[in-house]
Amino acid sequence: MTQIGSPAPEWRISEWLNSDEMLTLEALRGKVVVAFAFQMLCPGCVQESIPQAKRVHETFDGNAVATIGLHTVFEHHEAMRPVSLRAFLHENRIRFPVGVDAHEGDDPLPVTMRAYRMQGTPTLLLIDGAGRLRRQAFGHVPDLALGAEIMALIAQR
Amino acid sequence: MTQIGSPAPEWRISEWLNSDEMLTLEALRGKVVVAFAFQMLCPGCVQESIPQAKRVHETFDGNAVATIGLHTVFEHHEAMRPVSLRAFLHENRIRFPVGVDAHEGDDPLPVTMRAYRMQGTPTLLLIDGAGRLRRQAFGHVPDLALGAEIMALIAQR
Amino acid sequence: MTQIGSPAPEWRISEWLNSDEMLTLEALRGKVVVAFAFQMLCPGCVQESIPQAKRVHETFDGNAVATIGLHTVFEHHEAMRPVSLRAFLHENRIRFPVGVDAHEGDDPLPVTMRAYRMQGTPTLLLIDGAGRLRRQAFGHVPDLALGAEIMALIAQR
Amino acid sequence: MTQIGSPAPEWRISEWLNSDEMLTLEALRGKVVVAFAFQMLCPGCVQESIPQAKRVHETFDGNAVATIGLHTVFEHHEAMRPVSLRAFLHENRIRFPVGVDAHEGDDPLPVTMRAYRMQGTPTLLLIDGAGRLRRQAFGHVPDLALGAEIMALIAQR
Repeated sequence: MTQIGSPAPEWRISEWLNSDEMLTLEALRGKVVVAFAFQMLCPGCVQESIPQAKRVHETFDGNAVATIGLHTVFEHHEAMRPVSLRAFLHENRIRFPVGVDAHEGDDPLPVTMRAYRMQGTPTLLLIDGAGRLRRQAFGHVPDLALGAEIMALIAQR
Repeated sequence: MTQIGSPAPEWRISEWLNSDEMLTLEALRGKVVVAFAFQMLCPGCVQESIPQAKRVHETFDGNAVATIGLHTVFEHHEAMRPVSLRAFLHENRIRFPVGVDAHEGDDPLPVTMRAYRMQGTPTLLLIDGAGRLRRQAFGHVPDLALGAEIMALIAQR
Repeated sequence: MTQIGSPAPEWRISEWLNSDEMLTLEALRGKVVVAFAFQMLCPGCVQESIPQAKRVHETFDGNAVATIGLHTVFEHHEAMRPVSLRAFLHENRIRFPVGVDAHEGDDPLPVTMRAYRMQGTPTLLLIDGAGRLRRQAFGHVPDLALGAEIMALIAQR
Repeated sequence: MTQIGSPAPEWRISEWLNSDEMLTLEALRGKVVVAFAFQMLCPGCVQESIPQAKRVHETFDGNAVATIGLHTVFEHHEAMRPVSLRAFLHENRIRFPVGVDAHEGDDPLPVTMRAYRMQGTPTLLLIDGAGRLRRQAFGHVPDLALGAEIMALIAQR
């Protein structure tokens, strides 16, 4: 895991869905970034993390908070190709940008997942307006705590 | 929709998962068949129908009741190929047999779905021990009613 | 616990709510009786058992199945007097008959609860059309199994 | 409704449960006060508001946030006497202080409920560290928004 408080490593994305531009952490500087790393066939992601991401996207002002999905596929690679992810986003009415975490060589772990030393999916990343990683959580974070943490970062901008 | 009380049309399956043999309605005669037609990327199926199918499979004696999944893909065909379905079953710990409804020519609707004139997914089929279709329901059927309907068919065998 | 298959002990009720007549097991002979013993301040009853009782009441034909509540108060007696129970039924839109299990002398356990040797609340009783106790369960019974069990008793009438 | 941003009217409490001292808004100055007005037999309170109050109590540091229940009985008065409320708190493992909103004369509405012009239960009050009412909401406020609002008031202290 990247050290909390350190600059968040730039992600490496092979394709963006729900976004016309290549979104970088660099370009999002000034906003609080709430990133949900998920796999479309991970049950905990589908049941908990994706609905929570939608609530974050609907609750917070997009000028202050960027809600981002990261599709970090580390298993069943053939099953979760972008063509399947695209249908998944459509069917689940996911409107926020989702980046496909890039693969390099034969490594089953995608690049961003490895850079953050994520333990699995779902993983939540909170990045402050200065681009520092402030929280990384594997598994479910309750809404009440997440709302408070996001607001604490908004207040510090 | 096939007329209720008429012989249930034999399904046409291109591939079975979680089963070593080709399961036919003919061969299941004598058992009550509870079949769940679904698509792996249909949110209502994932949230309601698949968990219910798992409960049916765990609650009823397999000698009396056959719990069957039918993967009736009528949209996003590229997104829900058997390779993706296989990972979906694995990740969601689905142990009952699932048949991939066969496609014919250019028809986006698979053969079994068309034979039963299903309106969409999820669709529930209840077939009695004599092979007659006794109930076809588009959407969610509450557990309490479903438990009662299955038992009524068991009692009539 | 009363032996399964034996005649169900007649209940002793000090007051009926949602019913103009004194309901006896004797008078309900011929129907399947689904009785939910509960306390209005027992969280498991409020969250699981009472909503399930409402579903049973709405799902099954009243000519075949009698849905009954039994208010078996064995603790916090002053807190759950009939005046409070009456408001509870009103606020929760409970329409099926609820009998207040009678107390005798100083015994904190009410008479019916003692007769059935219930272990606590919620407790479910299933009584067949011949007045025999067929199932007694402390805690939650899933809807799917309950629907099947009720229908099995209906089929045997 | 009291004007948002104005000093929150002091509440009038006839009895405190889960607290040895009479808690006043005056004495809580410096903390963010999250007050949940409820009735113990109001289904929306039991299902949504009380569980949320417990989560607030468990999530936030008691030095920064005071979680308070207000039992604002305006109907079924006989059914919800303090003896019943006390059992309700015990059974539902509610540990935060709960004040019984005082009644005056024949008025069915209790004094605090009238002072805030509440429309019913549940009602949420957010009061900042300076004693100003910052939010009053009738009905359910989602956890994500509530967490953010509480943190915004903490940040302003």
